[in-house]
Amino acid sequence: MGDNLSSYLVDLNCDLGESFGSYVKGLDEEVMKYISSANIACGFHAGDPIVMRKTILLAKKFNVKVGAHPGLPDLMGFGRRWIEVKPIEVENYIIYQIGALDAFAKCEGLKLQHVKPHGALYNKAAVDIEIAEAIAKAIAGYNPELILVGLANSKLIEAAEKYGLKVAREAFADRAYNADGTLVSRKKPGAVITNPDEIIKRAVRMITEGIVISIDGKKVDLGKVDTICVHGDTPGAVEIAKKLYTELPKHGVKIAAMSEFVK
Amino acid sequence: MGDNLSSYLVDLNCDLGESFGSYVKGLDEEVMKYISSANIACGFHAGDPIVMRKTILLAKKFNVKVGAHPGLPDLMGFGRRWIEVKPIEVENYIIYQIGALDAFAKCEGLKLQHVKPHGALYNKAAVDIEIAEAIAKAIAGYNPELILVGLANSKLIEAAEKYGLKVAREAFADRAYNADGTLVSRKKPGAVITNPDEIIKRAVRMITEGIVISIDGKKVDLGKVDTICVHGDTPGAVEIAKKLYTELPKHGVKIAAMSEFVK
Amino acid sequence: MGDNLSSYLVDLNCDLGESFGSYVKGLDEEVMKYISSANIACGFHAGDPIVMRKTILLAKKFNVKVGAHPGLPDLMGFGRRWIEVKPIEVENYIIYQIGALDAFAKCEGLKLQHVKPHGALYNKAAVDIEIAEAIAKAIAGYNPELILVGLANSKLIEAAEKYGLKVAREAFADRAYNADGTLVSRKKPGAVITNPDEIIKRAVRMITEGIVISIDGKKVDLGKVDTICVHGDTPGAVEIAKKLYTELPKHGVKIAAMSEFVK
Amino acid sequence: MGDNLSSYLVDLNCDLGESFGSYVKGLDEEVMKYISSANIACGFHAGDPIVMRKTILLAKKFNVKVGAHPGLPDLMGFGRRWIEVKPIEVENYIIYQIGALDAFAKCEGLKLQHVKPHGALYNKAAVDIEIAEAIAKAIAGYNPELILVGLANSKLIEAAEKYGLKVAREAFADRAYNADGTLVSRKKPGAVITNPDEIIKRAVRMITEGIVISIDGKKVDLGKVDTICVHGDTPGAVEIAKKLYTELPKHGVKIAAMSEFVK
Repeated sequence: MGDNLSSYLVDLNCDLGESFGSYVKGLDEEVMKYISSANIACGFHAGDPIVMRKTILLAKKFNVKVGAHPGLPDLMGFGRRWIEVKPIEVENYIIYQIGALDAFAKCEGLKLQHVKPHGALYNKAAVDIEIAEAIAKAIAGYNPELILVGLANSKLIEAAEKYGLKVAREAFADRAYNADGTLVSRKKPGAVITNPDEIIKRAVRMITEGIVISIDGKKVDLGKVDTICVHGDTPGAVEIAKKLYTELPKHGVKIAAMSEFVK
Repeated sequence: MGDNLSSYLVDLNCDLGESFGSYVKGLDEEVMKYISSANIACGFHAGDPIVMRKTILLAKKFNVKVGAHPGLPDLMGFGRRWIEVKPIEVENYIIYQIGALDAFAKCEGLKLQHVKPHGALYNKAAVDIEIAEAIAKAIAGYNPELILVGLANSKLIEAAEKYGLKVAREAFADRAYNADGTLVSRKKPGAVITNPDEIIKRAVRMITEGIVISIDGKKVDLGKVDTICVHGDTPGAVEIAKKLYTELPKHGVKIAAMSEFVK
Repeated sequence: MGDNLSSYLVDLNCDLGESFGSYVKGLDEEVMKYISSANIACGFHAGDPIVMRKTILLAKKFNVKVGAHPGLPDLMGFGRRWIEVKPIEVENYIIYQIGALDAFAKCEGLKLQHVKPHGALYNKAAVDIEIAEAIAKAIAGYNPELILVGLANSKLIEAAEKYGLKVAREAFADRAYNADGTLVSRKKPGAVITNPDEIIKRAVRMITEGIVISIDGKKVDLGKVDTICVHGDTPGAVEIAKKLYTELPKHGVKIAAMSEFVK
Repeated sequence: MGDNLSSYLVDLNCDLGESFGSYVKGLDEEVMKYISSANIACGFHAGDPIVMRKTILLAKKFNVKVGAHPGLPDLMGFGRRWIEVKPIEVENYIIYQIGALDAFAKCEGLKLQHVKPHGALYNKAAVDIEIAEAIAKAIAGYNPELILVGLANSKLIEAAEKYGLKVAREAFADRAYNADGTLVSRKKPGAVITNPDEIIKRAVRMITEGIVISIDGKKVDLGKVDTICVHGDTPGAVEIAKKLYTELPKHGVKIAAMSEFVK
């Protein structure tokens, strides 16, 4: 058993760089200390060139790996509203945004590690294979070394595999799950879990057993979980990030950037 | 004299990819036949991801070299209105846009050749060294192999040299010049020259002698001219592009992409 | 029968003011001659303050009644892509846009006559009662004298009646219908009818009998039709507008602004 | 002297409704308690239809008069960067934004009281008569009963008078002045005054004597001051607003909405 203590690896990822112009969002500097991978907004649903540059620099300072967090072109809706876009539109929106972020990474001597779609795009890609494939195709066309982050057991993982991409299967320790493995909508009661001990417990089970109990009490098989999403937009969220970062190793889970272990 | 016939080299560049969403601008397919370098809008003042992809593909089809044509974030004003941006804003806007376009080029197996700032940014950079240096710094940081296209004898050329960039000195055969080498504002009468024969004559003199006669009759020394800007937004403009493309060789000027000869 | 010749009244409406910044769309000045009501874009999916002012002035010149043509906030998609907006968002987007257009009308001494939602908003409101009611509520709150234009026999007409608004039931002479009274999607073959004689014939039957034959040969009861939508974005479309304007009176149909006859 | 105690009237105004989508800015609910007039952003530099509606409702709840706070179309720069717009563009941007806000006021049974240009537009209009007149013309065309708020002794006041508009002369108790009556740029040290006692002292002198001491020690004649701008974007700013609201009456200054006393 002692040997097993170091046999689990997990990445902790967080959505960052979501400020825009004079609008500040997120406690980027606080949360950067407790994560291994940063998903950086690319200017469509949040972020702007100044914010992107700063966030890249911050990740560099804290030695956090960087990835693109592309979204739908809807700043007013923060990319959380699905827009009836065609796959070819999704593909080109993704390429555009990855390229824009990659330029800042390149200027600062960093390499992009991954791509994680944001908001409505992420949710749609979890269930719609056409959208999922458009995303995978965009990444494969631009740089097939990039890891695609998607909801564990979703269509996005399926699409990534079709395009030969490396994938990081993501789980949400602070979000309730439906029995089919999708996330309970934020609009429903109980969708967000706030008890830190509960969150740690769920995270450990997700990582070590690949299991989460759904909101209606069913055992959901997540398969292998590579990365846990942490939030950084409230002081409470930062506390939880810190707790995951410090508690997970006590449960035999080593935190490492996804590029160190996903294939 | 016979030997001289091939001693002048010039690039013909045109602003393309300026459509946006359902809005169509420019006769891109027509003018692509008569140029050696395409400046492609990057989504700030014109262009969108769909249009950028299409324009890259069109350039590939016609074997035209591609470059970024970044502008100010002002679609409503088509990037023609100066905005009081700080140098650090300019630098990051440029990096963002070059990266976005480069991503499409990369997806289609092309390499970016150059960067030419658009509209108010181009005009400001011709006379304001701080803005000019912000542009040069952005390019040097992203990819020092890119050629910076700027108005011949302007601050932008000066800034490019400071940052060790290759430059292409641009002249406008269909625009009137002031005695100080700047362009006559489009708001003034006589700013735009429409007579095709006159345009050819001016182009030849610009390329072979580095000279243009200003609107008030003064001889303006442009120095070496590497690229002539052609327009493609009216049927008349396409005719002129065609004429430049076919007539210049008869005057001993060979048309070639700027990357084949600028250092 | 002679008496019947003047017993049918119909409005001809057209979407106008769809240019944006330097982007020109539509043959507004041409089509303005052949319509009785202009639906003017309000800046969300098309149009800008300069364009709105000009279009109001053009309508004034041609003595055409003006109405607001509000859309979803999606210039890149021209308002044709449904966005998962909440009813309260729709309500406020509509109020904002009507107010903006009304300001220009007020400056030029005109009164708004009607409101017709654009694109994806129009199509959604035809089948989704929540969205339809959000639109009707916005209009009723702002000015209950405004006429709401909606697809004949759709949810939008139902919502308008619930809020006590006057309605103009719209039909499309150049678009194919499904058997359920909705329009055949533009993506399908046969969705758009281009034969001018066929269009006139359909328009006459729509107006005088309230009937259209669906794409699969069924008789569709449209009920009373108050206004026919004409297009003005291609030379061919303007020809059809002209033909409707000149031919309908020969079939006993008088053309008049909707405010002259709807209740 | 006792009689004089109630002889001074002043309005306290604050810029509100500056949130956008999911981005929150300002402590609107806190500051609303201590002001008589709210300047509400209209969607160009800040604000959106949802935010505008909420802010109108909040003003209604606190019985605060509402006005439009139109800005340049530059959300990324928060309207603080001058854009080289033409007077006709300014005029139409202002009409559009006033109309949009007025629509929400109308829906909630309120009447607009005033218009105060925002940021770079306000500063430019203080010194550039063409821009100042474009603003005044827009208001006069839309509703000549609206009060125009401008920097005391500036070109904007001059323009308002030319167009027969009522004006409210504004002063800033927490901003340093240049000897010519313009504000010291925020970029310079000493531009913003944070000592609450100093602010009260300056406000009293501005209101009762029409005088402020410039940053270089000169006495600046402001003429009559009708309204003092308070800020609401930091907890400290709200404290100052509260202090002005409670202290000014102790110095013989009665706080009242500008519409109660300006002519």
